[in-house]
Amino acid sequence: MNGSEANLPLGFRYASTFAGIREIVKDDIALIVSDPVAVAAAVFTQNRVVAAPVELARKNLRVSGGKIRAILVNAGNANCATRTGERVALECVRAAAKALGSKPEQVLPASTGVIGVEMDAKLIVKALPKLVSCLDAAQFEAAAGAIMTTDTVHKTTYAEIEGAKIAGMTKGAGMIQPNMATTLGFVMTDAVVPPAALRAALKRGVGRSYNRISVDGDTSTNDTVIVLANGASGVKPPGKTFEEALSGVLESLAIQIARDGEGARKLVTIDVEGASNERGAERMARAIANSPLVKTAIAGSDPNWGRVLSAVGNSGVAFEPKQVDIEMQGVRVCRGGVAANFSEEELKTKLDELECYIRFSIRGNGRGRARFWTCDFTQDYIEINASYRT
Amino acid sequence: MNGSEANLPLGFRYASTFAGIREIVKDDIALIVSDPVAVAAAVFTQNRVVAAPVELARKNLRVSGGKIRAILVNAGNANCATRTGERVALECVRAAAKALGSKPEQVLPASTGVIGVEMDAKLIVKALPKLVSCLDAAQFEAAAGAIMTTDTVHKTTYAEIEGAKIAGMTKGAGMIQPNMATTLGFVMTDAVVPPAALRAALKRGVGRSYNRISVDGDTSTNDTVIVLANGASGVKPPGKTFEEALSGVLESLAIQIARDGEGARKLVTIDVEGASNERGAERMARAIANSPLVKTAIAGSDPNWGRVLSAVGNSGVAFEPKQVDIEMQGVRVCRGGVAANFSEEELKTKLDELECYIRFSIRGNGRGRARFWTCDFTQDYIEINASYRT
Repeated sequence: MNGSEANLPLGFRYASTFAGIREIVKDDIALIVSDPVAVAAAVFTQNRVVAAPVELARKNLRVSGGKIRAILVNAGNANCATRTGERVALECVRAAAKALGSKPEQVLPASTGVIGVEMDAKLIVKALPKLVSCLDAAQFEAAAGAIMTTDTVHKTTYAEIEGAKIAGMTKGAGMIQPNMATTLGFVMTDAVVPPAALRAALKRGVGRSYNRISVDGDTSTNDTVIVLANGASGVKPPGKTFEEALSGVLESLAIQIARDGEGARKLVTIDVEGASNERGAERMARAIANSPLVKTAIAGSDPNWGRVLSAVGNSGVAFEPKQVDIEMQGVRVCRGGVAANFSEEELKTKLDELECYIRFSIRGNGRGRARFWTCDFTQDYIEINASYRT
Repeated sequence: MNGSEANLPLGFRYASTFAGIREIVKDDIALIVSDPVAVAAAVFTQNRVVAAPVELARKNLRVSGGKIRAILVNAGNANCATRTGERVALECVRAAAKALGSKPEQVLPASTGVIGVEMDAKLIVKALPKLVSCLDAAQFEAAAGAIMTTDTVHKTTYAEIEGAKIAGMTKGAGMIQPNMATTLGFVMTDAVVPPAALRAALKRGVGRSYNRISVDGDTSTNDTVIVLANGASGVKPPGKTFEEALSGVLESLAIQIARDGEGARKLVTIDVEGASNERGAERMARAIANSPLVKTAIAGSDPNWGRVLSAVGNSGVAFEPKQVDIEMQGVRVCRGGVAANFSEEELKTKLDELECYIRFSIRGNGRGRARFWTCDFTQDYIEINASYRT
């Protein structure tokens, strides 16, 4: 589905503008409003260092009983590790609530950008009247653009279940190894979903999407995924159906983050099969996804499967190397732990494609499997991050 | 001390030559021989995928009761994840033992290079007569050169205790995050050291040197550190004295590896203080050392301390962010978890130096401290590893 208004959930409006937080003139704040009060569920970063907006969002969710009117997002400053962080987050949320005529605890804040730099609440407070006056259902894609940092593309997705709609937006390109949560992601639906079912569906969906991507193995201090269900369509899909649709949306958003990893040219999908359980398979897949040596080999289209085997050997999960088969781009490169017979030249050409696939399978009866996504590791990642603030 | 013969331990001879394992013509095998049989201790990789020479070295140490005559090393091929690995390692060791007139179990093999490519034992067997005929005490530095892969410099060090000498050589620039062991490292001493004391001193020394460096967070399949004590000096230093001297040698070698990390321009020393115990401090320091975002910031001379704080937040160790002070190059950049008052321009200039220093301290009574070494992360790392085999 595309981003035409017909594919957007009912009862939501969006707006974005430039408030002056970024150094370059480009929309840096966004507002997502649900006109009927929405049921909300959210997951947040597991980093021990937690940004002020994450703390406040968590509190507001609790105080409001999960009944949310709006999400206020800014890019350009993480509002983390600053003297004034709590006060700034609160001031912005209060101003947004006032402009919308709702209670402050019904507004969830989210921030992304540099850590440790004081954020000026006035910039956002001053921009809020304009932001509210621009609110419109058609501004969904524009809002998705405003939350970008080093992202090179908007990341949005759409789904439909029995007439109800789901639309999601996300951002993220670096400091990406979400843990129990993610970067920023916002999913809106007009389906009728009970609060407990919404929370459970989000948790399960994030576990196999956002929590299965890595760009650089760093988990941000601001990771937040929020889902709002406002029931405006009147459609109440069966719980299982909704959960599957939400999982699909979360997976699509997560893959878009991996594909747009800082400096990345290639999306890498990793399947691990035959581990003794899913947790072990996930750890093995994550070890492959986080190995700089695997990721640089993919960047160089080098079928260097020895690095894949060595990475899994470091995952901390037990396995017998002689039972291992490895495929790259569908070509068997390792059979029973040693080199298989394949044409290195042909495989190099296949690895030049923009989508790479690694399958790591262990012979035997193990039923643990996991899919994980990452990207290749290029010189542009270094360039982007060696000059992030300059 | 420098590498003049007067600084080398008595009773050891070295040799190196080109056997044809590398694609370029550059010495690729080395032999270290102790003329009196030496007491040996060794630590090996904890990767689940273990190279054939590591398995054989472990076995020979056991079978010989730790009485070792020689170490046979090759670069250019890791002899790991191959069909013929065990046989190749055994054949090479037997040929070396025959040429030296010793028992096969008194020769320890070690290999480094690409994983998953069959190694040709004949190349080494054929080169052995020449290698043995070149054995000479003065060939120590040449042997250290032969074990290099992507290293840009020889890595050797010398120490003296009460007249006995210690000399060490090591290699390694990528796939470096030694775990309970290391890359390749060989330390020779003519001190008299009882076997149990030698093993204990090696284990403790490695724990605070090789196990505290990281270039890219990848642990190799071939990591090996061997220490040989042949007693040729007749000097028997007190256990504590020897242990300190050996630790110093291991630390010097480990730091040389971090400094010569693939593509690195800068050595980064990280001190964590005030953790509740040493293990926690080590995990925090390792999290900083492995963060691509911290390492790229150092490459760009960017005093982006928020990335340091965020990295420690991901270490899995509990702490209160508000109790954290961070220094870079001796300049306080973070005080009580928020930005300190400092001149960013001045600090940028200081970060251009080739040695960078990060101190992460937690206020309070915690006595856990750890020092860790890493390097900056530059585009050259990507270039080296995207084209390793081509």
